[in-house]
Amino acid sequence: MEIIISDKMITDDEFIKNNSVPGPTKEEIRCIVLCKTNISKEDKVLEIGCGTGGLTCEIAKKTKNLISIDKNPKAIETTKMNLKKFNLYNNVKLIKNDGLSIISNINSLNKAIIGGSGNDLEEIIAQIDKKIVKNGKIIVTAILIDTKVQSINQLKKLAYETEIIEVNISKGKILDRGIMMISQNPIAIITGTKK
Amino acid sequence: MEIIISDKMITDDEFIKNNSVPGPTKEEIRCIVLCKTNISKEDKVLEIGCGTGGLTCEIAKKTKNLISIDKNPKAIETTKMNLKKFNLYNNVKLIKNDGLSIISNINSLNKAIIGGSGNDLEEIIAQIDKKIVKNGKIIVTAILIDTKVQSINQLKKLAYETEIIEVNISKGKILDRGIMMISQNPIAIITGTKK
Amino acid sequence: MEIIISDKMITDDEFIKNNSVPGPTKEEIRCIVLCKTNISKEDKVLEIGCGTGGLTCEIAKKTKNLISIDKNPKAIETTKMNLKKFNLYNNVKLIKNDGLSIISNINSLNKAIIGGSGNDLEEIIAQIDKKIVKNGKIIVTAILIDTKVQSINQLKKLAYETEIIEVNISKGKILDRGIMMISQNPIAIITGTKK
Amino acid sequence: MEIIISDKMITDDEFIKNNSVPGPTKEEIRCIVLCKTNISKEDKVLEIGCGTGGLTCEIAKKTKNLISIDKNPKAIETTKMNLKKFNLYNNVKLIKNDGLSIISNINSLNKAIIGGSGNDLEEIIAQIDKKIVKNGKIIVTAILIDTKVQSINQLKKLAYETEIIEVNISKGKILDRGIMMISQNPIAIITGTKK
Ligand SMILES: Nc1ncnc2c1ncn2[C@@H]1O[C@H](CSCC[C@H](N)C(=O)O)[C@@H](O)[C@H]1O
Ligand SMILES: Nc1ncnc2c1ncn2[C@@H]1O[C@H](CSCC[C@H](N)C(=O)O)[C@@H](O)[C@H]1O
Ligand SMILES: Nc1ncnc2c1ncn2[C@@H]1O[C@H](CSCC[C@H](N)C(=O)O)[C@@H](O)[C@H]1O
Ligand SMILES: Nc1ncnc2c1ncn2[C@@H]1O[C@H](CSCC[C@H](N)C(=O)O)[C@@H](O)[C@H]1O
Repeated sequence: MEIIISDKMITDDEFIKNNSVPGPTKEEIRCIVLCKTNISKEDKVLEIGCGTGGLTCEIAKKTKNLISIDKNPKAIETTKMNLKKFNLYNNVKLIKNDGLSIISNINSLNKAIIGGSGNDLEEIIAQIDKKIVKNGKIIVTAILIDTKVQSINQLKKLAYETEIIEVNISKGKILDRGIMMISQNPIAIITGTKK
Repeated sequence: MEIIISDKMITDDEFIKNNSVPGPTKEEIRCIVLCKTNISKEDKVLEIGCGTGGLTCEIAKKTKNLISIDKNPKAIETTKMNLKKFNLYNNVKLIKNDGLSIISNINSLNKAIIGGSGNDLEEIIAQIDKKIVKNGKIIVTAILIDTKVQSINQLKKLAYETEIIEVNISKGKILDRGIMMISQNPIAIITGTKK
Repeated sequence: MEIIISDKMITDDEFIKNNSVPGPTKEEIRCIVLCKTNISKEDKVLEIGCGTGGLTCEIAKKTKNLISIDKNPKAIETTKMNLKKFNLYNNVKLIKNDGLSIISNINSLNKAIIGGSGNDLEEIIAQIDKKIVKNGKIIVTAILIDTKVQSINQLKKLAYETEIIEVNISKGKILDRGIMMISQNPIAIITGTKK
Repeated sequence: MEIIISDKMITDDEFIKNNSVPGPTKEEIRCIVLCKTNISKEDKVLEIGCGTGGLTCEIAKKTKNLISIDKNPKAIETTKMNLKKFNLYNNVKLIKNDGLSIISNINSLNKAIIGGSGNDLEEIIAQIDKKIVKNGKIIVTAILIDTKVQSINQLKKLAYETEIIEVNISKGKILDRGIMMISQNPIAIITGTKK
C-alpha cells in the first residue's frame, strides 16, 4: 500500500491490546522516536521487539522495507492485528523469533530500532552494527536503567556518535474542579549514529 | 520552494540566535508540537510569537501557507535569518505586529500555534476561534503555569476538545566517568480541537 | 503523649486507607512538606483537608497543638484510625467541618497546611492570614494546576514571600532483568511566609 | 556543641561555595536524604565525598559522631568553612583522603552516605558493608546513570534491602507575567538497609 504522509501519531487508545504483551509505546514517545529515527521512503529498517506494534505501525507509514521481530508469538499476533487495522500490513515483514537469530540473514540496514532485547542487548547491537550503513542509526527505547547504561556503553565502544534523552510526560485529566496531571513512567531514547 | 518531507528536526545548535529573543523551542518539543498540530500541505497556519523561528522553520517545511507574527522586531529579524538559512523563507509571510491586531485581517485558518501572547492570551484565542475551521486546531506552548490554566479554561469555554501535556526532558552529557542527565525546563503543550 | 524526634517518615504502606478518601501524601512529599513547614514543639498548627492523615500524623510527631479539619466524615474517621495506630491521637484536635467555617474560632496560628480546599482556596488563605503570626507560614500542597496559580496569586496579593516547587518522583521497581522506574504524579508545594 | 532540632534545611544560598568543588546538594534533596537516613543522636555516621558540605552540615545537626571524607583538599576546606559558619564544626571529624583508604580504620558504623566515589563505588560499598551494623543504612546520591546501576547491583549482591528513587524538582521563578518553572537536574537516592 501507499506510504501515508502525516505527522499525526495513532492515539494510544486506537491500538488493539493484549494483556500478555507490553505496549503500545505512548503517543508522544513514538513521536520523538520517529523524529530521531528520521526514516525515509527507501530506508531498510529492522525493529527488534515489536510488542503491540506501536512503533511498528508508525514506521510502516514511512517505509515499505520494515522487518519487525518479536520472540513472543502473542506480540507478533497483536502487531499483525494492528498493522491490518491501520492498513499497513503490506509494508512489514513480521517474524516470530529471537532478535539475535535473525540479524545474520539480513543484508544491509539503514536504521534499527530496539524496543526489547532480553539479556542480549550488547550482542544485538554488535550484530546490527555489522549490517548498518555509514550514517545509519541504532535507536534504543529503554524503561530499565540497566538498558540505558548498556546501550550507551556498547554504542560508545563501537564508536557511534551517541545521544541519550530521558522523557517524563504527564497528561492533564480535566476535572470539574481543575486540571490534574497524571504522570507516565519515564522512558529513555538512546540514539547512535554510525560514523 | 518545495516542501521538505522529513521527520528530522533541525538541531537546537543550528539556529541563529539573538540574545534579546527567546527560543528556539527545543528539538524534542518542536517534534511533539509538530505531531500534535499535524500540518498538511494545504493547511493555512497562523503562528503568534515566532521568537527565534524554531517552530516557524519546522512548520514551513510542511506548508506554504504560514503567517508568523511577533511584536518584537528582533524576533522577526532572527526568524527571517533562520528561514533563509534553511531555505524556507518563501513559505512564510512574516509580520512584525501585535498578534491581536492581525487576526481580523485573516480569512480562515486550519491551525494556529501560540508561542507567546503577553497579556492577550484569552482574547487571542477568542479571535482565532472566529477564523478557524471545524476540526481545526489551536496549539499553545506554555512555560508559565498561568498560561496553562488560561488556555485550558478559554478553550473549554469555547467548547474545544482540549488536551494538556507537560514535558520534562533531560539530556545525557556523556562524561568520562559516566552519563550525567541535564534537565530542560518543563514545557506544556495545550491542544484544542474545534468541534 | 511525648513528641517523637525522628526524621523518618511513616511508609506509604503503613497507613490505613479508605477508598473514598484521598491520600496518604507520598513519603517523599511528606518529607519535603515537613522541611518547608519546619514545625517546632510550641507551634500552633492548622491543617485543612487531612484526608487519610498522611501529613496529620507527621505533624503530630512535632507538635501537640495541631487542629486538623476535613469536610468528609470518612476522612476524619480514617485520620483518627491512623493517629491511633501511630500513637499520636492525643496531639491532635480533629474536626469534621468545612475549613472556612472553623478558622474564625481560632485565636492565633504559627503554621497552616492546606491539603484540600474545594472552591474556597482564596478565601481560606485570606481567613488564615488574619490569624497567622509574623514569620508564620502557609503551605499548600497542590495536585491541580489551578490550585498552584490561585495559591501563588493569593499569597502574592497578601504580600507573603512565596515559593513554589514542583516535585516529580519515580521509584524503582527492582525486577530480575533490571530496574524499572515508576512515576508518581507531580505535586506542587507552595510556601508562603508572612512578612 | 549541642544538637539542633529543626526540620528546616539550610537554604542553598547560605552555603559558602568554591568553583572547584561540586555542591551543595539542593535543599529538597538534602531533606529527602535526611528522611531516608533517619539519623539518631547516637548514630556513628561516615560520609564519603563531602564536597561543599551540603549534607555534612545537615547530618552534623543530628549527631556528633560524623566522619566526613573528601579526596579534594578544596572540598575539605569549603566544608570546614560551612561547618564553622553554621556552628557545627565540633560535631565532625573531617579527613582529606581517598574514601577507600579510610574505611578499614573505622570500628563500626550505623549509617554511611556516599556523595562521591570516583571509580571505587563497588569496593567502597563492599568495605563499608564490613563495618556497618545490622539494620544500618548505606545511602548513595547519584547524578550519573552508571552510579545508579552500580549501587543497586552491589547492594543487591550484598543482600541489602534496596530502594531507588529519582527526584526531579523544578522551582518557580515568580515573574511579573506569571510563574516560570526552572528545572534542577535529576538526582537519584539509593537506600540500602542491611538485613
Ligand atoms: N531478544 C529478543 N528478541 C526478540 N524480541 C524480544 C527480545 N527481548 C524482548 N523482546 C520483545 O520486546 C518487546 C518489548 S515491548 C515493545 C513495545 C513496542 N515498542 C510497542 O510500541 O508496542 C516484547 O514484546 C518482548 O517479547
Ligand atoms: N501579543 C503578542 N503578539 C505578538 N508576539 C508576541 C506577543 N506576546 C509575546 N510575543 C512574542 O512571543 C515570542 C515568544 S518566544 C517563542 C519562541 C519560538 N517558539 C521559537 O521556537 O523560537 C516572543 O518573541 C515575544 O515577542
Ligand atoms: N473546604 C474544605 N474544607 C475541609 N476539607 C476539605 C475542603 N476541601 C477539600 N477538603 C478535603 O481535603 C482532602 C484532600 S486529600 C488530603 C490528603 C492528605 N494530605 C494525606 O496525606 O492523607 C480531602 O479529604 C477533602 O475532603
Ligand atoms: N573515592 C573518593 N574518595 C573521597 N572523595 C571522593 C571520592 N570520589 C569522589 N569524591 C568527592 O566526592 C565529592 C562529590 S560532590 C558532593 C557534594 C555534597 N553532597 C554537597 O552537598 O556539598 C567531590 O568533592 C569529590 O572530590
